[in-house]
Amino acid sequence: MGPETLLSHLAIVLVRPKIPENIGAAARIAWNMGINRLIVVRDNLPEREAMAKMATHKAAHLIDNLEIYPDLAEALANFSIVVGTTARRGRQRSVEKTPRELIDALLPSLAANQVAILFGPEDTGLTNDDLKYCQMSSAIPTADFSSLNLAQAVAIHCYEIYYGIVHAQKDMVVAPHLATSHELESMYAYLEESLYSIDFLNEVSHSYWMTNIRRFFSRMVLTSKDANIVRTVCKKLLLQQKNQKYKALGDP
Amino acid sequence: MGPETLLSHLAIVLVRPKIPENIGAAARIAWNMGINRLIVVRDNLPEREAMAKMATHKAAHLIDNLEIYPDLAEALANFSIVVGTTARRGRQRSVEKTPRELIDALLPSLAANQVAILFGPEDTGLTNDDLKYCQMSSAIPTADFSSLNLAQAVAIHCYEIYYGIVHAQKDMVVAPHLATSHELESMYAYLEESLYSIDFLNEVSHSYWMTNIRRFFSRMVLTSKDANIVRTVCKKLLLQQKNQKYKALGDP
Repeated sequence: MGPETLLSHLAIVLVRPKIPENIGAAARIAWNMGINRLIVVRDNLPEREAMAKMATHKAAHLIDNLEIYPDLAEALANFSIVVGTTARRGRQRSVEKTPRELIDALLPSLAANQVAILFGPEDTGLTNDDLKYCQMSSAIPTADFSSLNLAQAVAIHCYEIYYGIVHAQKDMVVAPHLATSHELESMYAYLEESLYSIDFLNEVSHSYWMTNIRRFFSRMVLTSKDANIVRTVCKKLLLQQKNQKYKALGDP
Repeated sequence: MGPETLLSHLAIVLVRPKIPENIGAAARIAWNMGINRLIVVRDNLPEREAMAKMATHKAAHLIDNLEIYPDLAEALANFSIVVGTTARRGRQRSVEKTPRELIDALLPSLAANQVAILFGPEDTGLTNDDLKYCQMSSAIPTADFSSLNLAQAVAIHCYEIYYGIVHAQKDMVVAPHLATSHELESMYAYLEESLYSIDFLNEVSHSYWMTNIRRFFSRMVLTSKDANIVRTVCKKLLLQQKNQKYKALGDP
């Protein structure tokens, strides 16, 4: 099953959000991370203009198709896995996962289930009554027992979900065409000649510097193109040195 | 070295942010993730009230201690590792890391170096001119070639950095003392002058080659010593060019 299908089994549920801009920002990040279902639990319709502005036109369809329920139970009726997000509160919430552990836990069930991720109001977070619908809870690790901005908490969860799903199916990375040993030696030969020509190298310092220079280039993985650039610079330098020498000798 | 110390070596740098609320939101998430240094590159002071509101009182000290510079080069002078965050743009930016790969790459160097993470303006992101200061770039994986809200991009990066530092189980290898942005820029200036002097660069090819050369050096992590070697070679070359020129002119 492809990532798109797995992502289509997820919904972001904002429970009693106060600020319409946060709904818009949640729509934008959800869409960016391949999640196209946004649900709001609220007594009344949030102001459309404020939502749409933060969503940007690219995520406008999430605002157009926004599902609004007055009641959380009703909103969750067709979901089989419900996750509550909370601020980390120490020992009371010992079962909580990090967002990364959450997606690892969800992955095996995602193909066959609809999953709702709940986020509470900006000021108070989810209540214990909201959390009773949840089989899992997730808290973002922070440096202190602090709480995040709602839109940022949604962002981090959506990001971890998307990353987890996409990277579960790893692609092969195509390596660039590396310089052959022959190309490297030719490059070093030109470098050596060039450094002699500008009196950077001399008989005494020669082997010390060439060893350092080789170490320097060995630390990166040079491509054929890289080696060729270095060689071209050296050729240009040597040619110019030669011309100047003739000029100095030849101009009487 | 403890997580707090490692986190104290990191700064979030907002380059020409337009919306003061985003500076506040960045302060809040940075503080939540244990990062207490926030730098803004901007011609004028952002409106304090708007920043403070989004920062909340807990992150107020980041707004109080906000460092503001009119110029990016000046802001970066004392950083030895500079990371640019970009929207994913496909193949051109093949060297970019995900935020998770970024913190893995940064961890070994964090104890001995100051690291700046740059975020561009809301509408356009970092320019190529901004990116030339960066040794690494980071892009948040998304479902489409889309761009995130600035505050959310900062949130995801701060989260990954905090998570990566706190969860690093492996022993850290101590990295050498890396070249500062100031040392690198001085090296590039000498390189540029040298390449002109041997006619490798000209007006037309100039920016193409300098971009390639910067990319080339960015792929390796240059130490202060490395930068100094390159600079010394260039000085030697320039001195010799000058002498030969005088010789050509002066020997009648």
